[in-house]
Amino acid sequence: MRIVVALGGNAIQTREERGTASEERAAVREACEGLASLAASGHELIVTHGNGPQVGRLLLLNASAPRHVVPMPLDLLVAQTQGELGCVLQQELGPALARAGAARPVVAIVTQVLVDASDPAFLRPAKPVGPYLSDEEATALRRAGVAVGRAPRGGWRRLVASPRPREIVEEEALRALVAAGAVPVACGGGGVPVLREGEALRGVEAVVDKDRAAALLVRASGADLLLILTDVDHVFSGFGTPEARPLARLTVAEARGGLERGEFPAGSMGPKIEAAIEVVESGARAVITSLEAAAAAVEGRAGTSIGPM
Amino acid sequence: MRIVVALGGNAIQTREERGTASEERAAVREACEGLASLAASGHELIVTHGNGPQVGRLLLLNASAPRHVVPMPLDLLVAQTQGELGCVLQQELGPALARAGAARPVVAIVTQVLVDASDPAFLRPAKPVGPYLSDEEATALRRAGVAVGRAPRGGWRRLVASPRPREIVEEEALRALVAAGAVPVACGGGGVPVLREGEALRGVEAVVDKDRAAALLVRASGADLLLILTDVDHVFSGFGTPEARPLARLTVAEARGGLERGEFPAGSMGPKIEAAIEVVESGARAVITSLEAAAAAVEGRAGTSIGPM
Repeated sequence: MRIVVALGGNAIQTREERGTASEERAAVREACEGLASLAASGHELIVTHGNGPQVGRLLLLNASAPRHVVPMPLDLLVAQTQGELGCVLQQELGPALARAGAARPVVAIVTQVLVDASDPAFLRPAKPVGPYLSDEEATALRRAGVAVGRAPRGGWRRLVASPRPREIVEEEALRALVAAGAVPVACGGGGVPVLREGEALRGVEAVVDKDRAAALLVRASGADLLLILTDVDHVFSGFGTPEARPLARLTVAEARGGLERGEFPAGSMGPKIEAAIEVVESGARAVITSLEAAAAAVEGRAGTSIGPM
Repeated sequence: MRIVVALGGNAIQTREERGTASEERAAVREACEGLASLAASGHELIVTHGNGPQVGRLLLLNASAPRHVVPMPLDLLVAQTQGELGCVLQQELGPALARAGAARPVVAIVTQVLVDASDPAFLRPAKPVGPYLSDEEATALRRAGVAVGRAPRGGWRRLVASPRPREIVEEEALRALVAAGAVPVACGGGGVPVLREGEALRGVEAVVDKDRAAALLVRASGADLLLILTDVDHVFSGFGTPEARPLARLTVAEARGGLERGEFPAGSMGPKIEAAIEVVESGARAVITSLEAAAAAVEGRAGTSIGPM
């Protein structure tokens, strides 16, 4: 099978949260062992990944830049995290594949995703990014026209739009790499969001949900399966209630029903379910599970499988 | 012809030196117009670029990070600049090629270059990087085992090794992209230097000269020509003296002689000449010129052409 693997922040993030390069590498290494065993079973892989902690660190560095250093816009910070995590994935996945007897070239590509200027998400920026802000900092930002919102645990954070990705700009290059037998790392952090203006491309200060971008990757690469790896083995019905129970299967109709009833929170499971629905409707299959259960889930023995019925 | 184009800091760097994203983009756009006209003449392109100002900014941001933010090592900062500049090049070169009637996929790949742990450069770190330091800061760094050196215009700077690149780790992926008709952007900033330790790859805090990496790219991609773009139209003999005169041609023997006599300064023209010699010895051709003269130089009507004799 050709599989798009979406590594969630939780699958590659360090638990200690100090965010050193060596912690980051150790977390990525663990994930790569799992990916290598999938490749050793004969599957073709395309890898994508979140970048929450990494883009958060860059936003923080830019926010505390010395006066003479000009901060970079968010879209270029996303591109920087694609370089950083792409490099770590190349360093860890290449050797892990070789150890597993499935040596293949691993290559991270800088990936842009087209978004629409008319996307309603631009009217209501809702995705919190960057450092926590004091009341004064939040007021100053709001006066400068930047959206801010109260953080659940106090303080404020900057809010940006999370528009729907429409197309992967580097789709042809991606397919060439897949055809050549490489393992591409693409759409890191959801991809760099860009608007098309005539023939030009212009980056926008927004973030694209990585699971939605992963669904696009499935289409662009002709993959059979979207494997979303997160911190739980299953999707749960009634998550967080005494009636919570893990779901082995979910039809598109059930998934839609759960989304409408608000059973899958917007910030976490919701976008994964939406991505899974999109993938199933385009004729492929989707599985949501943990890194540990990935190999079994691909064989249908673990995780939550989302199918047409 | 298949041409590796090496864009020097001077070819893509803003003159104002404030370093904003829009200045960076404007400089890249200008360079891309020149590249697009080469593509429109039927040439295949592989692009590489310097990253001096960009990695300098990241080093500065990391040096002034708030206490709870862990700085990233230099090799991952180079990877971040590959993401940043790769993205800007994709955004500018793709549309420029389309406008010139030579539409092709442009894709930046994160690129690692193997270096040797026994490279003598590691014994004498000589390449200044990052912000200027006070006497106190320099002393503190030296006590922590970090090499520092006096900057020509006062103050101190951190020194890192600039080892010779031996091999491009992502060589196969690069060739697949060239074969598919794409324009790869590779080895940005000279590539991320890595050591091979058994099967593992480990990043090292060093920087690789981008012109030397460009010479490797010529070999890896089977290119016919290395086109080094810098801020002068020609290599000069007696540069900076009253006898300075531009050279239209330079044989490998003459180039070697000039290097031995110290005619080509180590920090600027020296590595370009060395890269040109390497390329010519592997059977290709090299031209050193400015962005403005690039098209004429490829046709042998401008710049300094380095050949076997």
